[in-house]
Amino acid sequence: MKIVLKIGGSLLYRDDSVVLNDELIKQYVNIIKSLSQQSHQLIIVTGGGKLARQLIKVGIELKVNHTFQDVLGVEASRIHAMLFIGALSDIAYRDVPRSFNEVRTAISSDKIIVLGGLQPGQSTNAVASLIAEFWDADLIVNLSDVDKVYDKDPDKHPDAKAYDKLSIDDFYNIIVKQEESPGRYPLYDRVGAEILKRSRLKIVFLNGRKPENIEKAIKGENVGTIVC
Amino acid sequence: MKIVLKIGGSLLYRDDSVVLNDELIKQYVNIIKSLSQQSHQLIIVTGGGKLARQLIKVGIELKVNHTFQDVLGVEASRIHAMLFIGALSDIAYRDVPRSFNEVRTAISSDKIIVLGGLQPGQSTNAVASLIAEFWDADLIVNLSDVDKVYDKDPDKHPDAKAYDKLSIDDFYNIIVKQEESPGRYPLYDRVGAEILKRSRLKIVFLNGRKPENIEKAIKGENVGTIVC
Amino acid sequence: MKIVLKIGGSLLYRDDSVVLNDELIKQYVNIIKSLSQQSHQLIIVTGGGKLARQLIKVGIELKVNHTFQDVLGVEASRIHAMLFIGALSDIAYRDVPRSFNEVRTAISSDKIIVLGGLQPGQSTNAVASLIAEFWDADLIVNLSDVDKVYDKDPDKHPDAKAYDKLSIDDFYNIIVKQEESPGRYPLYDRVGAEILKRSRLKIVFLNGRKPENIEKAIKGENVGTIVC
Amino acid sequence: MKIVLKIGGSLLYRDDSVVLNDELIKQYVNIIKSLSQQSHQLIIVTGGGKLARQLIKVGIELKVNHTFQDVLGVEASRIHAMLFIGALSDIAYRDVPRSFNEVRTAISSDKIIVLGGLQPGQSTNAVASLIAEFWDADLIVNLSDVDKVYDKDPDKHPDAKAYDKLSIDDFYNIIVKQEESPGRYPLYDRVGAEILKRSRLKIVFLNGRKPENIEKAIKGENVGTIVC
Amino acid sequence: MKIVLKIGGSLLYRDDSVVLNDELIKQYVNIIKSLSQQSHQLIIVTGGGKLARQLIKVGIELKVNHTFQDVLGVEASRIHAMLFIGALSDIAYRDVPRSFNEVRTAISSDKIIVLGGLQPGQSTNAVASLIAEFWDADLIVNLSDVDKVYDKDPDKHPDAKAYDKLSIDDFYNIIVKQEESPGRYPLYDRVGAEILKRSRLKIVFLNGRKPENIEKAIKGENVGTIVC
Amino acid sequence: MKIVLKIGGSLLYRDDSVVLNDELIKQYVNIIKSLSQQSHQLIIVTGGGKLARQLIKVGIELKVNHTFQDVLGVEASRIHAMLFIGALSDIAYRDVPRSFNEVRTAISSDKIIVLGGLQPGQSTNAVASLIAEFWDADLIVNLSDVDKVYDKDPDKHPDAKAYDKLSIDDFYNIIVKQEESPGRYPLYDRVGAEILKRSRLKIVFLNGRKPENIEKAIKGENVGTIVC
Repeated sequence: MKIVLKIGGSLLYRDDSVVLNDELIKQYVNIIKSLSQQSHQLIIVTGGGKLARQLIKVGIELKVNHTFQDVLGVEASRIHAMLFIGALSDIAYRDVPRSFNEVRTAISSDKIIVLGGLQPGQSTNAVASLIAEFWDADLIVNLSDVDKVYDKDPDKHPDAKAYDKLSIDDFYNIIVKQEESPGRYPLYDRVGAEILKRSRLKIVFLNGRKPENIEKAIKGENVGTIVC
Repeated sequence: MKIVLKIGGSLLYRDDSVVLNDELIKQYVNIIKSLSQQSHQLIIVTGGGKLARQLIKVGIELKVNHTFQDVLGVEASRIHAMLFIGALSDIAYRDVPRSFNEVRTAISSDKIIVLGGLQPGQSTNAVASLIAEFWDADLIVNLSDVDKVYDKDPDKHPDAKAYDKLSIDDFYNIIVKQEESPGRYPLYDRVGAEILKRSRLKIVFLNGRKPENIEKAIKGENVGTIVC
Repeated sequence: MKIVLKIGGSLLYRDDSVVLNDELIKQYVNIIKSLSQQSHQLIIVTGGGKLARQLIKVGIELKVNHTFQDVLGVEASRIHAMLFIGALSDIAYRDVPRSFNEVRTAISSDKIIVLGGLQPGQSTNAVASLIAEFWDADLIVNLSDVDKVYDKDPDKHPDAKAYDKLSIDDFYNIIVKQEESPGRYPLYDRVGAEILKRSRLKIVFLNGRKPENIEKAIKGENVGTIVC
Repeated sequence: MKIVLKIGGSLLYRDDSVVLNDELIKQYVNIIKSLSQQSHQLIIVTGGGKLARQLIKVGIELKVNHTFQDVLGVEASRIHAMLFIGALSDIAYRDVPRSFNEVRTAISSDKIIVLGGLQPGQSTNAVASLIAEFWDADLIVNLSDVDKVYDKDPDKHPDAKAYDKLSIDDFYNIIVKQEESPGRYPLYDRVGAEILKRSRLKIVFLNGRKPENIEKAIKGENVGTIVC
Repeated sequence: MKIVLKIGGSLLYRDDSVVLNDELIKQYVNIIKSLSQQSHQLIIVTGGGKLARQLIKVGIELKVNHTFQDVLGVEASRIHAMLFIGALSDIAYRDVPRSFNEVRTAISSDKIIVLGGLQPGQSTNAVASLIAEFWDADLIVNLSDVDKVYDKDPDKHPDAKAYDKLSIDDFYNIIVKQEESPGRYPLYDRVGAEILKRSRLKIVFLNGRKPENIEKAIKGENVGTIVC
Repeated sequence: MKIVLKIGGSLLYRDDSVVLNDELIKQYVNIIKSLSQQSHQLIIVTGGGKLARQLIKVGIELKVNHTFQDVLGVEASRIHAMLFIGALSDIAYRDVPRSFNEVRTAISSDKIIVLGGLQPGQSTNAVASLIAEFWDADLIVNLSDVDKVYDKDPDKHPDAKAYDKLSIDDFYNIIVKQEESPGRYPLYDRVGAEILKRSRLKIVFLNGRKPENIEKAIKGENVGTIVC
């Protein structure tokens, strides 16, 4: 099975400080190794998380323009990708592709590719969608801080409804309703969702704090929200 | 003045066939040379036009996936960029940047940069916005088939209202109301418009079939729609 | 068997307009897939065809120099290569190599490589010869509009003699006698033929309008002209 | 004057947390702009600091090998370089060179180049020396946490002697005496010092916490330790 | 004036051994510096000489194929280019372009570019012609072992006629008459001569053992053979 | 077994002239092919030898700076790598990686990688150590002119002691005691030895003039000095 695994940047850090969550990362590494041994093919996309946020904050202090703020976020996400490549050793393509062209070259090897963002003005969710579409992936596994897709923000609305399963069109409409706030992306962004929709890609949303759910979801168990 | 000149792909072709409009292109080349002599700095972004559309059509016949359809459109837009580079000779950066990283390298020269698209999943309008933001451009000149920005599609609505001037926020709302149809982009797409909005970039929309208006617009004459 | 398949650009278009011949392209794609399943190794070289010619014509209008006219032709041939890569999906190396160095990198993967021209001043026939020599290919299959190699232009000379088989030295002498007209190449050009000769490479000339002949020729049937 | 400015990574962070010292960075940016206006030519080399240290620590947890630990440190130093490039805008070469070859290309522009490390197994001090030698720089300005070069570690030895001026040979001998502890580099490392020695490069050591000293040192005032 | 200076590889070596002729090289370096100060723009193309020949000889022993033999020759010519770049320091583009694409990037700087060969199957003469055409050069200065262009090989024919001046068409015919022997190129090769002819480029042939003639030829003195 | 084979540059030349030792090179090629058939994985690092020395000598004549002298040495070592790649044909990665980043890309193929130096200021021994560490190699085989590691220079000290086996720490101390003379490296240099030490890499020192010992050493026979 060809799987794109999107690891949200927030999962890579502990609490509120810029301290990497090495234990969770280690678990992800083991799961990736295990999936690879089951002869799944994998592309991993890592987010920028708190490191991105800190860099952007300092960038704003330095009057860095918006594109460059995005560049800093992209670089942060690549640092996370590099950590995974180091830990995965020989089974990973040993560099972080830095443009769509480099992804194309990397894909021609049989290795696990790990990358962060590709370009300013584009979220790592959009990258995950685009690469899944280009690669004709069977499944995107999206890890974030939340258990399921809700119809509205569950933190603000106690009556928010959680979905076990959603059609892509319904999912797209939920995403569109969410406002894209500048510099920060919601559960999934509109550009990424449009690609899912136009190519009818299958995506599963999981809580990345429960990494044991990744393999379950790949086997078809319903442990988050399935969109297809 | 730092100017990003976006030339819509449809302008580069005659009527309905895939025949390049060499006369109009020649006029653009002369205007670009003239602007350069007035010591304006220029980055040119060319669209994909009918060549893109034909390639995508054949791509669909060949069951090429959506990302790859976009890739074909991007390649078409680059061919157009190459034509301009050939015609501009020594005053142009002599290759078409093919990724944001290559744009960064090219920008460090003092030449006129000409490029097409950068990545699948991204319109050449979004490219123009992004590069204008990155480069801290003073003005984007957007050439297309229409004279002005309208509040709705003037072909369908005889009562559509044309604007001489628009705030970025109002412009953004108009764009959002337009539907983004897959494979084809409206006057400007949402991703490009969001960048305009977040960085308060100034953009002028002109009818590219009246190339004499380009220099007028740069001098501040109101010959299309000014958004700022 | 290591096969270089050269697809003449003229085959990729219908009649006189710049309209791609999607049906024939689809047949080529299927043949390439089938050859790959029979565990042949393949490198495909595509020509520039009518798109190249149109771009060069406009380039001349724009007073683009000769090298740049060649550049435009090379870009056209790469667009065709990209179409094939899109259609071949996972079995193809997913980018078009743009220099001999990039060919070297690509060759180290086990994928089908598809490329167009490499450099101005060099035909795609020369590219096919050079890559065949570098790669120690067993066979070049050259597809063009004509059925066989003739001793003179069969359109002008009704008594032109067609060959089923030719020695490389005789073939070389025929090519040398043909005049290389600027901007356009004959059946094969001298530079390409010299490489065939110096390395005693085997090449088969076939009419690409009868794609069923490709597999026959690879199996050793005499359906065009064999040069070795 | 051709100046290589080495900014030690530790200066870029506040106290003990991984929080960037945006105020000091802002001051450096202003000084660099001012030096550039005085028509000095500049190459900036940034260290990896606490971000490097945190990444390496997590890398060790993940059993990443030593080369890869260095890679993580190099990536951290590049993030810092990117921040400066963003803040310097048009006067900086707009990408971080990632290999010696990329430095060579970048040097051919007239922009300020900002880079971090180049390769695992090599400190950013060695990079500063190497680039100064390659570029025939007139001066290296080395900013760190200490005021001057001492004959031994002043934290451990209250009788450590501070130098206002040192010959390169004496400086080299001091560096050699210091032990190079793995993963961390002393004031300057041996490889970097050897390059200084073999090409008789001039270097000034300053306390980077007093950024006003940079311009003084360039004007020839004795505000740290001059080695030549 | 835009000048392409082609330095034949044989000039770079003494007698029969593989020992570089440092004295002559030093003279060339001084002439290039002087021409640059007179604000001529320069691109230098160096040949492969005896180093190329030795490498190819060993390559043949190792059963390296013809393309790879050419690759070895190209690498040898690049080594010579690198020597010049080192000696020219800041006024030279600091890397050897290794493909036509890299030439395009390099040309966008204002530096002196020095390169060797670009591709197997192509002589450094062809490279000089191609770059002169692409760059719209005013003059190619071709340095070799002979004083002038002769109508036949002067070593074999005592009655060979030397030309002071030749039309491009006559020159082309002389070159065509010469046989291109594999692995070694005559005074100029056919591919290079065709480019001269199609773009009516001006070229001067000089004896490189008398380097004082270079500046004379550029000033218009008749010290070799002028072809235009 | 993952083996890094370091071939000292001096082995590649006969006696005192710059004439390649094609016989010995041919033997190395055969051994590499044979090891590859026994499914060992190989990375080959070649030194610069007499070609490097000659180029550096001429470079000094031309007042080329130290970094550039190193660059010339690196280029020489790459020429040697290219010879091996040509001779190994399909089993080798077909280009010489020129930076650590390019090594990373190359390593993701399953081919034998052959490279020379990577950067000025770094010996090919350091390259061998670094790549062995990055690649988690099982063994480095170091071929030079001497039979074993001695405690001091055996040419100067008749009582020098040869080792069959050495701990890494003892080996490191011997290397440190040797003086690193500028422009030339001893048996192994300190930077390379430090990497061996920090990662406890296993290395065997053999006399490369007796190539039959390579396979013996890999099988565990004691034919030189084992350091681990």
